[in-house]
Amino acid sequence: MKSCGIVAEYDPFHNGHRYHLKKARESSQSDCLVVVMSGNFLQRGEPAILDKWQRTKAALENGADLVVELPFAFAVQSADYFAKGSIQLLQALGCTDLCFGTDADPAPDYSAFAAFYKQNEKKIESKFLELKNNGMNYPQQMATVFRELYPDLDIDFSSPNHILAMSYAKETSKYNEPMRLLPVSRSGSQYHDRSFSKNQEIASATAVRKAVFQNDFDLIKNSLPDRSYADLKQNYLVRWEDHWPFLKYQLLSSSATALKKIYQMTEGLEQRMMSAAKQAGSFQEFIGTVKTKRYTWVRLSRLSAYVLNQITSEEILAVRDKPYIRILGFNAVGQLYLNQQKKIIKYPLISNINKKNQALVKLDIKAGEVYQLASEKIVIQDLTRSPIKN
Amino acid sequence: MKSCGIVAEYDPFHNGHRYHLKKARESSQSDCLVVVMSGNFLQRGEPAILDKWQRTKAALENGADLVVELPFAFAVQSADYFAKGSIQLLQALGCTDLCFGTDADPAPDYSAFAAFYKQNEKKIESKFLELKNNGMNYPQQMATVFRELYPDLDIDFSSPNHILAMSYAKETSKYNEPMRLLPVSRSGSQYHDRSFSKNQEIASATAVRKAVFQNDFDLIKNSLPDRSYADLKQNYLVRWEDHWPFLKYQLLSSSATALKKIYQMTEGLEQRMMSAAKQAGSFQEFIGTVKTKRYTWVRLSRLSAYVLNQITSEEILAVRDKPYIRILGFNAVGQLYLNQQKKIIKYPLISNINKKNQALVKLDIKAGEVYQLASEKIVIQDLTRSPIKN
Repeated sequence: MKSCGIVAEYDPFHNGHRYHLKKARESSQSDCLVVVMSGNFLQRGEPAILDKWQRTKAALENGADLVVELPFAFAVQSADYFAKGSIQLLQALGCTDLCFGTDADPAPDYSAFAAFYKQNEKKIESKFLELKNNGMNYPQQMATVFRELYPDLDIDFSSPNHILAMSYAKETSKYNEPMRLLPVSRSGSQYHDRSFSKNQEIASATAVRKAVFQNDFDLIKNSLPDRSYADLKQNYLVRWEDHWPFLKYQLLSSSATALKKIYQMTEGLEQRMMSAAKQAGSFQEFIGTVKTKRYTWVRLSRLSAYVLNQITSEEILAVRDKPYIRILGFNAVGQLYLNQQKKIIKYPLISNINKKNQALVKLDIKAGEVYQLASEKIVIQDLTRSPIKN
Repeated sequence: MKSCGIVAEYDPFHNGHRYHLKKARESSQSDCLVVVMSGNFLQRGEPAILDKWQRTKAALENGADLVVELPFAFAVQSADYFAKGSIQLLQALGCTDLCFGTDADPAPDYSAFAAFYKQNEKKIESKFLELKNNGMNYPQQMATVFRELYPDLDIDFSSPNHILAMSYAKETSKYNEPMRLLPVSRSGSQYHDRSFSKNQEIASATAVRKAVFQNDFDLIKNSLPDRSYADLKQNYLVRWEDHWPFLKYQLLSSSATALKKIYQMTEGLEQRMMSAAKQAGSFQEFIGTVKTKRYTWVRLSRLSAYVLNQITSEEILAVRDKPYIRILGFNAVGQLYLNQQKKIIKYPLISNINKKNQALVKLDIKAGEVYQLASEKIVIQDLTRSPIKN
């Protein structure tokens, strides 16, 4: 069986994602579509609008064959580690192709970029090291490095999806058997589009979340598969503001010494955050106060997610040292594929959490318990859950 | 000017407290009644029903001349440290008398007990040390020690007020100029009385809280001075359940290593608490699950208050090493008394919090900020507050 990998967040799952899965199957000619999906906290440092099980179900009903969780330790990260973790899992699962969205039409030549990267890896990495701690964010660093080393590269570094796509290309090129890169041009909506018109079949997740939180379900009905529409209408929708009282409390009650131990808490940020927490009445207000040119919204949102979940560097490094594959759901094809690959997958495959594997997954379990505090309507996320069978 | 000291919690202030203040003035023939009162968290490990400023106001309007705060580090403690801290502050403030309630009528001879204690201090302390870590709680230890060393002592060790009274007697006897002991027999209500009838002028604080939480204000109208009645009717009333979501979150997100650093977290209790927190839906249920014969409700409630406020042993010891006197309020007499005593008070007197004294009071500031999270209706407790002038 041949499989194609997909990296996703599905926050929430919409028609654009369904289109992407359809294109992935067509272009890869794969039997099995394997999705590695962020769990309950996302790359931009926010809790997911629906929990990981609801999002898994929507994906399985709309084209995915197997969904595994991108652990918190990789998911809530800037593009480099996010890509490193996702590609690591897809490579381990034996995917031969990788299908991802791109904002450009036609897509840039990511394969040429990956080849260039592989040939010049040391030079590139040392350029990145030179730029470290100089105040640039990751996209700015990428732009600086490649404008110098690869001036012909025609890529818009300001687009988060380009950055992710390039990071995937770069990561898979490091493996002995890299995945074939299959970019799909997004049709109909740009990532950051916040508005769209009624009856539009493809809208960005940002636009969908905005409409949902404004309770404008009419507007998005045509942009969502039935499952997502029903889930968004019926279930509790999580946002940062639900966890804000807990983040505030943590920042009020923790010592500066304890906060300094939080992953990526650097350069006196703990003092800025502690003092902003005392005044702020909402998460929006809090980040607005802490934000500077150097510390972007997304970086601070991720740091807030680390504080909320009390995550230390050791906990992140433990997952990097001992990766695992947590299975969230599959259909008959996905199950067949898993059975076929089982013997060659070098990381522990986790279907149900038990005493033996609990230590590996403990950061995700903790994040699930914290996620659950957003509302009593959110059910238990990990300890007693089994993969969804579609 | 002559002054009489009183140790109190006023949770809430009721007619029994007014009666006590009246008796204190009569029996001591003092010009100034000095109250040392627990702040926003109390001896039994609970948040106070009304904040420390509201309780101070009620005390000043009903007989007290000066109210100072018993710091969290002394207030949320078993009888021994609670008494040690209160007596330390009253002695430092120059009180020559100490007036306290007793459940017995006539009162036991506390002075004889104090004298006996002073004469046999080493013997008594070594007996206590022998009993340490044997699973007895403090009242049981007291009963065991004194039944052996002082069999004539006719005191009911099961009453928390006897235990406190004896602890006061014991503590003041250690000073070169001990305070004169003035016990006042409680008239009309026993400490643990939960019920009382309408028109009863003196009821226990327990009974008042019970009626208030049942919204039965008619029942208690005659048992409360106007200020308390109005405050209880108009203000947000705090209980442990308001802080329960934060305690639960703290226990879910903290590591066992971090919890072990909490003051008085011993013998694997952190594991019991972490696992109970996952299941419990309320503070009542939580303590019910963790409770054993050895770990009483009150001890676990105090431990929960330490966890909620993330308090380490170092923070408690810092206050013991550097005591201070935080002034919550006074009337003209209290102000005159403070001016007279200022020069001989050996601890820093704190009226307003500023950069210079902030470090001393930081545990109380933190506890105030955590207390405030119970409701948006609770106003800022420390940083910008000045003593109440009545």
